[in-house]
Amino acid sequence: MSIYCGLISIGNEILLGKTVNTNLAWLGAELAGMGIEIKEAITVKDEADSITEALAHLWERYDIVLTTGGLGPTEDDITKSAIADFFAVDLVFNDALWERIKLMFANRGTNIPQVNRSQALVPRGFVALENKLGTAPGLHFQQNNKHFFALQGVPLEMKHVFDTQIRNILQLAYPQSQGIIQRTLHTYGIAESALAELISTQDLPQELSLAWLPQTGRVDIKITSSSMAPLSQAESLIRSRIEDKIWGVDEDTPAGVLLDLLRLKRWHLAVAESCTAGLIQAYLGAIPGASDVLLGGVVSYANRIKEDLLGVNTIQQHGAVSSETALAMVKGVQKLCASEVAISVTGIAGPDGGSTEKPVGTVHFAFAIGSKNWSKKLFLTGERQTIRHKAAEAAMLMLTRLLQDKEI
Amino acid sequence: MSIYCGLISIGNEILLGKTVNTNLAWLGAELAGMGIEIKEAITVKDEADSITEALAHLWERYDIVLTTGGLGPTEDDITKSAIADFFAVDLVFNDALWERIKLMFANRGTNIPQVNRSQALVPRGFVALENKLGTAPGLHFQQNNKHFFALQGVPLEMKHVFDTQIRNILQLAYPQSQGIIQRTLHTYGIAESALAELISTQDLPQELSLAWLPQTGRVDIKITSSSMAPLSQAESLIRSRIEDKIWGVDEDTPAGVLLDLLRLKRWHLAVAESCTAGLIQAYLGAIPGASDVLLGGVVSYANRIKEDLLGVNTIQQHGAVSSETALAMVKGVQKLCASEVAISVTGIAGPDGGSTEKPVGTVHFAFAIGSKNWSKKLFLTGERQTIRHKAAEAAMLMLTRLLQDKEI
Repeated sequence: MSIYCGLISIGNEILLGKTVNTNLAWLGAELAGMGIEIKEAITVKDEADSITEALAHLWERYDIVLTTGGLGPTEDDITKSAIADFFAVDLVFNDALWERIKLMFANRGTNIPQVNRSQALVPRGFVALENKLGTAPGLHFQQNNKHFFALQGVPLEMKHVFDTQIRNILQLAYPQSQGIIQRTLHTYGIAESALAELISTQDLPQELSLAWLPQTGRVDIKITSSSMAPLSQAESLIRSRIEDKIWGVDEDTPAGVLLDLLRLKRWHLAVAESCTAGLIQAYLGAIPGASDVLLGGVVSYANRIKEDLLGVNTIQQHGAVSSETALAMVKGVQKLCASEVAISVTGIAGPDGGSTEKPVGTVHFAFAIGSKNWSKKLFLTGERQTIRHKAAEAAMLMLTRLLQDKEI
Repeated sequence: MSIYCGLISIGNEILLGKTVNTNLAWLGAELAGMGIEIKEAITVKDEADSITEALAHLWERYDIVLTTGGLGPTEDDITKSAIADFFAVDLVFNDALWERIKLMFANRGTNIPQVNRSQALVPRGFVALENKLGTAPGLHFQQNNKHFFALQGVPLEMKHVFDTQIRNILQLAYPQSQGIIQRTLHTYGIAESALAELISTQDLPQELSLAWLPQTGRVDIKITSSSMAPLSQAESLIRSRIEDKIWGVDEDTPAGVLLDLLRLKRWHLAVAESCTAGLIQAYLGAIPGASDVLLGGVVSYANRIKEDLLGVNTIQQHGAVSSETALAMVKGVQKLCASEVAISVTGIAGPDGGSTEKPVGTVHFAFAIGSKNWSKKLFLTGERQTIRHKAAEAAMLMLTRLLQDKEI
């Protein structure tokens, strides 16, 4: 890749930890796909000096400079003035833009606050980029073959302006840029260091780079290359060593892979969740078209619900967190929803509720496919959310393995 | 605040958009609470030159420099060598550290891969910071009154090392630092620009700063000050203008506020979810102690489940997405779970399934408190996930309002 980009994220709220900067991740992935590499990303406060210093640093070094944030109407937004100062131009009131902003308010049936007037100001020589999802336009400025863009901080608006206008401008400006090719292999049930011992970069083609990305409870392997052949060669070699541990590639998710498998078989899924409290169904429901497969199920958080709705009668003897209860839950939800396939989860997510015998992180799973049943116990580490997330993913990945006739 | 910090996040995966940098948000919030301000945060690739350039830039300017990432055993981790180069020291093999790492593997019952040997290397003059959750130690180096720390990229390990060791070192090093005070007021049902017109900074004490932070479907107001009096004064003024729209402060979440209200009344909650598919219950279940209040409920994703489990008989006449069906769902789940209070949601999250009459984003809610019922229709904008998230939060916030005898 030969086209480089510098990114400035503007916002006290990011440095103070009130907002997580998802814009960087999104832009990084989109630009990489176009052969443009973010070499450096700087986050600064909503202060004119910090913004112009970062601009000076990046504008000198890279082909493209992007800013996100600081274009709203309210008083903490000083980005536009800082940009105008840096490029030594003044701000011009744009009547057409003002009409458009007024129209947006009129369509919503509300009066336009006077603070919104500042959103019609554009640095001289800059092009305002249309934002159909909000009142703050984006900005574009070109100098020789360098491009500057100012984007919104609100992720939806930023993505909209990038997708509808900036992508085009960049493709026209840098037709020679060549996208890198990446392949991510998703594994489950093997640790990063064990992977690193099984797969040494010495065995792989030189022209590529390999990275291990630990996710919560599993590891991704990312292969990066500028051409297809070495990438395929590396993927084959890795698969020959750990095929059994790979459950998906690239954008695959545990929920998506499971839904696809079940859809192929025309089977339907019901879920009974205790400690995950709906998280498995929420992950499945996040995938468009999940309704082909997911019937729904029961969140049996209280023991009474396990007994009354699912017909569980094992709690007194074995406890709510036991393989007996998990099996009773899975049979109960399968019957209740009349589904071919079912999952159940019951465990201790913490921070309270653990004991020596059943510490926090003890989770029992059960699965039903037709008349067959399986159960499995895992000890999951981490905080409450981590345990719940790991349990939800493990449930989906284990059912996927069972559907593929693999062991869990 | 007078103590400044620079942060370097190391990792190709962040710039390529494969990982979202939540470490920055966490560290920003923790340091701000100690009176230490992250002035600048730079994200660089796993490349020695980029790391040393960023180190040079920040070490010259700020009291504290922190790095996160790049301390793992695998071959893409070159942070430690870059640090040693920048500070012009060599790497020393630390036998005690190696014994500890070997012990961790022995306790897990696995052999130690040879690639892990690199984790026992420490730059000369640096102190290794103990990491009980992983094999990579943190690093600390002091020069005059400046401090350098290298932390893990894995959030759990990074937080653990910060909490157990770095917090202490910084408090001892900068006893004079004074934390800033922040107050966040969470609003629902009022737009950012409407807030800005109702609350002008001209009315507020000069010594503070005010920021509007748009969340998905609602807006937070953040007041920042170095002392308590102006902050309280500002909060009172803001409350006097928009009290009805404020549902929580600081770390409050829609799920936590709702659970607290119900817990006070000793009432229990059941939930019937269609388009949100478990998300409301998952948000509630994320709060420790949710089991006092949340009984559970039904994810009635398929119409058959709405009918069979919840006794809904309105679908043929009114459709699955209608106030009649929402009301039938909420009555059904309240009866099924024998709960004092219940919520139901049914809507069209998209991308498919919309019509002219019921476009994507149409969501019907219903609520039951004792024998009383309410229903409400919202049109939510955004992508599938955004609509589901907004619907889940709106359901919890509207029930909170009803419990406070407010209108929805």
